[in-house]
Amino acid sequence: MKRIELPEQIRALVLQLKRLPGIGPRSAERIALWLIQAEDADPAALAAAVGQAHQNVSFCPVCGYFLAPDGCAVCSADQRDNTLICVVEQPTDVLPLERSGVYDGSYHVLGGRLSPLDGIGPDDLRIESLLQRVAETKPQEIILALSSDVEGEATASYLSEKLAVYQVRITRLAQGLPAGGGLDHVDSLTVSRAIEQRR
Amino acid sequence: MKRIELPEQIRALVLQLKRLPGIGPRSAERIALWLIQAEDADPAALAAAVGQAHQNVSFCPVCGYFLAPDGCAVCSADQRDNTLICVVEQPTDVLPLERSGVYDGSYHVLGGRLSPLDGIGPDDLRIESLLQRVAETKPQEIILALSSDVEGEATASYLSEKLAVYQVRITRLAQGLPAGGGLDHVDSLTVSRAIEQRR
Repeated sequence: MKRIELPEQIRALVLQLKRLPGIGPRSAERIALWLIQAEDADPAALAAAVGQAHQNVSFCPVCGYFLAPDGCAVCSADQRDNTLICVVEQPTDVLPLERSGVYDGSYHVLGGRLSPLDGIGPDDLRIESLLQRVAETKPQEIILALSSDVEGEATASYLSEKLAVYQVRITRLAQGLPAGGGLDHVDSLTVSRAIEQRR
Repeated sequence: MKRIELPEQIRALVLQLKRLPGIGPRSAERIALWLIQAEDADPAALAAAVGQAHQNVSFCPVCGYFLAPDGCAVCSADQRDNTLICVVEQPTDVLPLERSGVYDGSYHVLGGRLSPLDGIGPDDLRIESLLQRVAETKPQEIILALSSDVEGEATASYLSEKLAVYQVRITRLAQGLPAGGGLDHVDSLTVSRAIEQRR
């Protein structure tokens, strides 16, 4: 006797959903069935949104941020201080910096950080385009807003070395206590950094 | 100064992903960015799979299971004992019953269970089509494989009443200890059911 299975269209959909980050087999099945069964589901809109984003969004060759049909939001931004470049790992790192409301300079997205164990070397990051940009636009300051872990530190050191030949101030984000947090909720490495970088 | 935002295509995608069950704002953003950035992402395949499933899968007017272009897997199944009908709440409830390997009858999907609090009454379920099917095909036994909670019990009682006029044996799934589980891992309601239904 042949077992009754899900239609192949549903199985194909589950397979695709399972590939998404953070979606396991159970969630994938649940989402697939919701898309097909739920009254308020709009699978056509989801399919269209995936297709639209895929076809219309690429990466800016200058700064590395998302490039939409109406241009790059970083490079086309008005009233920005172009003597400042903030170097970040991912395009999405721009968003929390923007939300902070205190930064009004430009950005440069590396596309990752140096990680020899994962086979990511300098040539895999947008370092050459950063050096070129610095040579051309002669900014006054470059803020390295990289992760505060080993790979982020290594990337920052590498960049500082490469940037040393240009007349540019190189700074890094401060490390210390998170706003509103007391000493009792913070790990000891953060505390030691907060002491070292006291002002 | 205008803040730099995500391109509208990405925001639209995040909005659609956020509507999926179990996907919060953070996961939606993470999935959207993965779809656009990751080398092994295949957004076109995902969009196609969503569209295909949406366009090609509906529900069988007879049994309520998924109806694909090649027919309903329940109604077209060979070598099935059609004197047995197993009544389930959802189309997906068919799968664990099939996996058990011990059931070889037919199925009838209600599409839910009675739940006055959620405004789900008998007319919202596929009860009329069940009665019609029983009248026409005259099965020997109907197994009510419904949830063992209050709403499932209420639905089973309602169905038993409605089915009483037909010459059909009405059974329910046994309740008791899960296979491989000892008494210490089981809640007291399950234990009391296991005692009541001891054999």
